[in-house]
Amino acid sequence: MYRFECDYSESCHPAILDYLAETNLIQTPGYGEDHFCEAAKELIRKECALSPEECDIHFMIGGTQTNLTVIASLLRPYQGVVTAASGHINVHETGAVEATGHKVLAIPSNDGKLTAAMVQDVYNAYHEDVTKEHIVQPAMGYISWPTETGLLYTKEELCDLSACCHKLGWPLYLDGARMGYGLMSSACDLSLADIAQLCDVFYIGGTKQGFLMGEALVFTDPELSIGYRSMMKNRGGMLAKGRLLGIQFQAMFQDGLYFQIAKQADQYAMQIKTAFEEKGCKFLYPSMTNQQFPILPDAWLKELEKDFAFSFWQRMDAEHSAVRFCTSWATQQEAIEKLLAAIRSL
Amino acid sequence: MYRFECDYSESCHPAILDYLAETNLIQTPGYGEDHFCEAAKELIRKECALSPEECDIHFMIGGTQTNLTVIASLLRPYQGVVTAASGHINVHETGAVEATGHKVLAIPSNDGKLTAAMVQDVYNAYHEDVTKEHIVQPAMGYISWPTETGLLYTKEELCDLSACCHKLGWPLYLDGARMGYGLMSSACDLSLADIAQLCDVFYIGGTKQGFLMGEALVFTDPELSIGYRSMMKNRGGMLAKGRLLGIQFQAMFQDGLYFQIAKQADQYAMQIKTAFEEKGCKFLYPSMTNQQFPILPDAWLKELEKDFAFSFWQRMDAEHSAVRFCTSWATQQEAIEKLLAAIRSL
Amino acid sequence: MYRFECDYSESCHPAILDYLAETNLIQTPGYGEDHFCEAAKELIRKECALSPEECDIHFMIGGTQTNLTVIASLLRPYQGVVTAASGHINVHETGAVEATGHKVLAIPSNDGKLTAAMVQDVYNAYHEDVTKEHIVQPAMGYISWPTETGLLYTKEELCDLSACCHKLGWPLYLDGARMGYGLMSSACDLSLADIAQLCDVFYIGGTKQGFLMGEALVFTDPELSIGYRSMMKNRGGMLAKGRLLGIQFQAMFQDGLYFQIAKQADQYAMQIKTAFEEKGCKFLYPSMTNQQFPILPDAWLKELEKDFAFSFWQRMDAEHSAVRFCTSWATQQEAIEKLLAAIRSL
Amino acid sequence: MYRFECDYSESCHPAILDYLAETNLIQTPGYGEDHFCEAAKELIRKECALSPEECDIHFMIGGTQTNLTVIASLLRPYQGVVTAASGHINVHETGAVEATGHKVLAIPSNDGKLTAAMVQDVYNAYHEDVTKEHIVQPAMGYISWPTETGLLYTKEELCDLSACCHKLGWPLYLDGARMGYGLMSSACDLSLADIAQLCDVFYIGGTKQGFLMGEALVFTDPELSIGYRSMMKNRGGMLAKGRLLGIQFQAMFQDGLYFQIAKQADQYAMQIKTAFEEKGCKFLYPSMTNQQFPILPDAWLKELEKDFAFSFWQRMDAEHSAVRFCTSWATQQEAIEKLLAAIRSL
Repeated sequence: MYRFECDYSESCHPAILDYLAETNLIQTPGYGEDHFCEAAKELIRKECALSPEECDIHFMIGGTQTNLTVIASLLRPYQGVVTAASGHINVHETGAVEATGHKVLAIPSNDGKLTAAMVQDVYNAYHEDVTKEHIVQPAMGYISWPTETGLLYTKEELCDLSACCHKLGWPLYLDGARMGYGLMSSACDLSLADIAQLCDVFYIGGTKQGFLMGEALVFTDPELSIGYRSMMKNRGGMLAKGRLLGIQFQAMFQDGLYFQIAKQADQYAMQIKTAFEEKGCKFLYPSMTNQQFPILPDAWLKELEKDFAFSFWQRMDAEHSAVRFCTSWATQQEAIEKLLAAIRSL
Repeated sequence: MYRFECDYSESCHPAILDYLAETNLIQTPGYGEDHFCEAAKELIRKECALSPEECDIHFMIGGTQTNLTVIASLLRPYQGVVTAASGHINVHETGAVEATGHKVLAIPSNDGKLTAAMVQDVYNAYHEDVTKEHIVQPAMGYISWPTETGLLYTKEELCDLSACCHKLGWPLYLDGARMGYGLMSSACDLSLADIAQLCDVFYIGGTKQGFLMGEALVFTDPELSIGYRSMMKNRGGMLAKGRLLGIQFQAMFQDGLYFQIAKQADQYAMQIKTAFEEKGCKFLYPSMTNQQFPILPDAWLKELEKDFAFSFWQRMDAEHSAVRFCTSWATQQEAIEKLLAAIRSL
Repeated sequence: MYRFECDYSESCHPAILDYLAETNLIQTPGYGEDHFCEAAKELIRKECALSPEECDIHFMIGGTQTNLTVIASLLRPYQGVVTAASGHINVHETGAVEATGHKVLAIPSNDGKLTAAMVQDVYNAYHEDVTKEHIVQPAMGYISWPTETGLLYTKEELCDLSACCHKLGWPLYLDGARMGYGLMSSACDLSLADIAQLCDVFYIGGTKQGFLMGEALVFTDPELSIGYRSMMKNRGGMLAKGRLLGIQFQAMFQDGLYFQIAKQADQYAMQIKTAFEEKGCKFLYPSMTNQQFPILPDAWLKELEKDFAFSFWQRMDAEHSAVRFCTSWATQQEAIEKLLAAIRSL
Repeated sequence: MYRFECDYSESCHPAILDYLAETNLIQTPGYGEDHFCEAAKELIRKECALSPEECDIHFMIGGTQTNLTVIASLLRPYQGVVTAASGHINVHETGAVEATGHKVLAIPSNDGKLTAAMVQDVYNAYHEDVTKEHIVQPAMGYISWPTETGLLYTKEELCDLSACCHKLGWPLYLDGARMGYGLMSSACDLSLADIAQLCDVFYIGGTKQGFLMGEALVFTDPELSIGYRSMMKNRGGMLAKGRLLGIQFQAMFQDGLYFQIAKQADQYAMQIKTAFEEKGCKFLYPSMTNQQFPILPDAWLKELEKDFAFSFWQRMDAEHSAVRFCTSWATQQEAIEKLLAAIRSL
């Protein structure tokens, strides 16, 4: 069985294990105050083109933890976070944001993107309402990049959204669980430095990009991060051996490995995309990243299921379903070749 | 200016002030443990056809407080409450339910009703999802009766919804902020005893029905109310002079005054409805209760605004808007006559 | 039976009922945006010697609701509120503050007062701790005035405490559930204007001072009240007929009635105090306000219980208990005379 | 510099890294539903002498996360958790339990233990109070074992505490962050199977016992764990690559390595203890586990600080301080010998 059902089926890239082994017995302070974390922050700042004064970086364990802690930290109790309805915080975190007391203001969106116009509409609807004290105040924007649908905001879209949020006085938060796959996509016109300029807070995902676990959270407005370490502990998100996160980010960022492996995964995904296109398939979303959502006849699914694992996404009609194929740092050349052959022979 | 913009513009029905004055210096224990509250509970149980063993009644101050306390009391932390998207808890309580940690699972609904089929769909979607631990568990139903749109569930609709919730193991909670206006509507085929049989928790609204403030919360499953008095205090909803609530419910329920004044308000509303119908108007919702939502040409609105206060509801097209006219216990015969005349002369 | 067990056994002062009746059918907007509330705010500002620009006033229903809403509004999630261990928020609110997510940092205090030195110690302990991110950050001070033990901070004490809090950047919040009894005590050297100068937020209690219900919350730093009306709704504390609170404060403040009735209650309490002193009794706390805590032989309690209701407070030794006698606006001359005679004849 | 300041200064025991490397590319489902977690649960059940039907095991990332999730899962909103005042949840988790809405009911305790008598007193105080609805309801017991002070409950003490909690209907929760050091102490008369019999929920700590991170949470009453996986996600505590926790527990439990390394650490600690005793030192707590708290003259501290790192604990008098020396799986024979020599030469 060749597995394409998600991008976190294995432990981690071997370079991480090697560096963990190499540094294993070095003694450090706990809770992220070690020199590995410092070195990793320096590498991340360099990629983001930010000086130490311009940002504040924290290493977190996982995405849901990061999302809930950031959102609870930035909002006052009667405020909510605005997201496309398909946003991870709205649909796949078991109410983790609501558990911190905040409403997720979910805006319908066909492609999973939140636009400047949507944000402006939400703002206007609130501020034009004379009974606004009876309504949750929208106060920050949340986007995933790439989206849960595999799509990328263009530089223009992100500039517009950022400008709109900032005009309204909202912070813009970008969930970069699959940041690398986005940046390395052939369709991407944004750099990490662009993202750092346009967003007030964002995280660079590790879990889905070959780490054991870990996300690097970057505040580009240090005012917003006041007290953030206390917030982390208050929500149970401060790792005792914080070095583990620093070590992984150091291993992955010091020679660009983070980007190389994402690029390879994206290229494999494009091969899958092309193979399905050549068979005349449509796609649920026009993804140019490591997640592909072809719409396939049920008969084809049955055939493919014999040798390949992938995820059911949604039924389209009586005879077709959309499914998801994921590539990752761990996808093997051989698996791709087998899959391409199988598609062609459908 | 004759005012029809809401049903809580005055203090309270004079019978309440009279009874407050009569009982003013009688000394009682605080926090609802007085004989006025006991007497009021007995009157309510009689209307509900329930014995003391079959129910547990608590007097609350207002609707949002009641909703948030009940929902926080009934749900476990990872569970959510299912409502029509227009439900009061979703749109007009400034995130009060989310502030208790729970997601409001809002289901689109054209008329503001939640049906058995919608509930079953939500349940199925959760239980069919293999990753359900990543999703909020739907675990109780919330409805308003009458709805925020002025509509009534029929007995059949409420029986179906109740049966569905109970089959799924969910409690069904009915927000009766305008309960009297519902029960006294000519379109109503439900009694308070029916509601008590079909719902696990519901409240009989006072604030919008001529009280200073106050709602009577009835648990028809006493198991569900274990610890409820502690919950009330925990959420700041226990009134020191709880007698004030008992006194009001006693005054309004001992001779059926609660129902008489609601009936009169409904009749006035029907006269308004007829007058608009005779002018060929359409309505946003086919309400048979004290709230009427006619869709009027903007020119007419300008004319009516000279002498009458009412609420803007939503713009329909370039030349028409839906507005709301409310009647209440305090609506005067004279005001109605002036309004009917004004409508006819449009 | 003459009742001295608490100061909220009756409904309200007749002047309130009279004014409610007089204003009953006047139509106003809801939610505290009416002219009665405006007039009451003006009266309160006058007593506080504050201009409209210097303060922001909100009317709340009860004390626990006020405390939890203020504290949740002022603190960030990882911060706590510092109080004497006997503070109402720590012992008699069923965890209402914790339910908003904040730790109550309770400091042992023999007499129920929080001193500047205690606050400084708490601050130092936090800031000297190198692992402070693992500890709740103390960030605001809470005091009751009079305390739950009937005591008054002197002007000097309150000046010191206020100066200390402000030096540390903390707001100081004063719970004035029995404010009038404090201000009218012969031992009081503070005016309402002093309190307004020294505290950042405080409330003037109505419930225990002859109101149906209601507390007037005063922010003397308007920056601190940003979004407070949304907070009120978010916590279920916004009264639909907000006018009821304005009407009561107007009735009680327009001719100084609030202060007159508190003064009378204090004077009665002093008579009770003197009578017990003349019998050689000791007191649990040296209260000069409307609550008296004599320590009595159990045999005396038995005797007094025949005709008088009062509250058991705590057992002192095998033969003595401390009890509480409360006076209020509703205490009758006759009841006092009977009690004094009974004490003298013990 | 030889480091004794805590038991989590290194990454992890090499056996864990070896097993991670060995299993690295094996593909598994995420979120703890993999065969490594299953195998680890089986090993843990065996040590606890529990069948699969008798318990429910979940792997968590860290201690604070585990504590907050368990407590939030077991309590209703108005209930609190009872702990010795020095309990980790009360003093070193930045209000993480309060952030879930619950009061920590902290009981003063000289040695950091919670006794059956204390629990009974808390229960009685609540249930004898006629105003109990105004007080947080105590509803579960929390202990650390070993305590934060390095002490062990004896089997008799734990039996008494367990019997008391169960008589009152409370679950008893044991925080076993240093479980191994406790079980392997020469002063321990409890087995893991005893703990499993006496506690309703407990966790076996990994982080401080040589793991990268991870704690194994065991519910011995499966009723109590209903919905626990949803709770984990709701609080951000569900690790995507849950296998990492299973792999570590499997590596440490399959040949008793968990216990061997704890035993060695305890033996080293006893050598340190003896060395200080021979110099006539007193101890802050009579610990028989891997944490030692000698009270030393400040001059000695200065001397020892030259070559050894340890933690300042508290000042005792003008010339003495209590400090903490920790041993762990990573403590080297050479470091111990140097330390013992240094102590002897003081």
